Amino acid sequence: MKRIRTGRRPGNPDTREAIVAAARRLFVEKGFDAATMRAIAAEAQVDPALVHHYFGTKEQLFVTVMQFPMAPSEMIGEVTAGGAEQAGMRLVRLFVTIWDSPVGAIGVSVIRTAMSNDLSMKLLREFLTTQVLRRVVADLGLDPAQAPLRASLVASQIAGLAMMRYLMKLEPLASLPPEQVVAAVGPTLQRYLTGELDGSGSAAA
Amino acid sequence: MKRIRTGRRPGNPDTREAIVAAARRLFVEKGFDAATMRAIAAEAQVDPALVHHYFGTKEQLFVTVMQFPMAPSEMIGEVTAGGAEQAGMRLVRLFVTIWDSPVGAIGVSVIRTAMSNDLSMKLLREFLTTQVLRRVVADLGLDPAQAPLRASLVASQIAGLAMMRYLMKLEPLASLPPEQVVAAVGPTLQRYLTGELDGSGSAAA
Repeated sequence: MKRIRTGRRPGNPDTREAIVAAARRLFVEKGFDAATMRAIAAEAQVDPALVHHYFGTKEQLFVTVMQFPMAPSEMIGEVTAGGAEQAGMRLVRLFVTIWDSPVGAIGVSVIRTAMSNDLSMKLLREFLTTQVLRRVVADLGLDPAQAPLRASLVASQIAGLAMMRYLMKLEPLASLPPEQVVAAVGPTLQRYLTGELDGSGSAAA
Repeated sequence: MKRIRTGRRPGNPDTREAIVAAARRLFVEKGFDAATMRAIAAEAQVDPALVHHYFGTKEQLFVTVMQFPMAPSEMIGEVTAGGAEQAGMRLVRLFVTIWDSPVGAIGVSVIRTAMSNDLSMKLLREFLTTQVLRRVVADLGLDPAQAPLRASLVASQIAGLAMMRYLMKLEPLASLPPEQVVAAVGPTLQRYLTGELDGSGSAAA
């Protein structure tokens, strides 16, 4: 009798879900930085120790909220470890490798959901800003005055690549071999990360 | 009595709507080129002359199907008229000018709809390919072997700019003055249109 499931196990799963739901609300309402583990615990009406017990860090909790299959911090380390000089190439190569794999379907679904729902869009923006872009910028040691603009330009090209290659499947980009995507898009990301952005000498038309 | 509306006027509006609905179906199913005016008329069960009467050309019919506020052919003329050399700058300037205006809300809605619905996505892809990219490529006289890839790379950066500046509103890109967007993104589009794409000498990481 003990092994018969009644559809819902007592205790833990509900608590876990309540914490994830509370975290999702607070990440949207207050943003990642202001949404403390303590505030999330209060919102979920559980002891803060439980939040740490289930999720470890706030970063890991956010990754769970986003249903992200891997921790961005690990992936970003791969991109930034070699310094800023070839980071654009490494970034697009990592992106295409992940999105060409079965995991890419999760990315497609995250973007679709964000597009159809304002709260999901805010959540994705907060995730992108605090978990991905802020780290890339910090790890590469970019000038803080220009770093946010550089990060948002990188995000624009990556998002557009996701949209055209994986969602809209626009040819020939959709079927282009990964290394050709890297060769075509890498220099764009590299310029956004470390190049001139003021169009000096070439912006007039 | 004559001027009282009963909610639906007889004849024309229904016919017009039937033609638009038939065109939408055929543009998705067969693509723009194969969906002839005659086939659209047959699908809508009206005389082909009526389709021409209401919509003029097949291009104009497609613009109506997309609820697009202006004909792409006119806008594209502005971008390509000065030749390929500064076309990247002119393209992003035109794009930002339109999307920063009230008309931009229509663009946002078109993208959102496409993201939530496969048929709308196919329709948008067909529109982008046949009404926008094909013309840019033809007007600029690009090498036909490379032109489709160049066009799809341009589309990826423009789509990502739309997504980050207008849908997600990622800062500081969302509030960047238009000329700074042109200076930052213009060189990307210019390289996609006329530059080296094979990463010669810089693709290794």
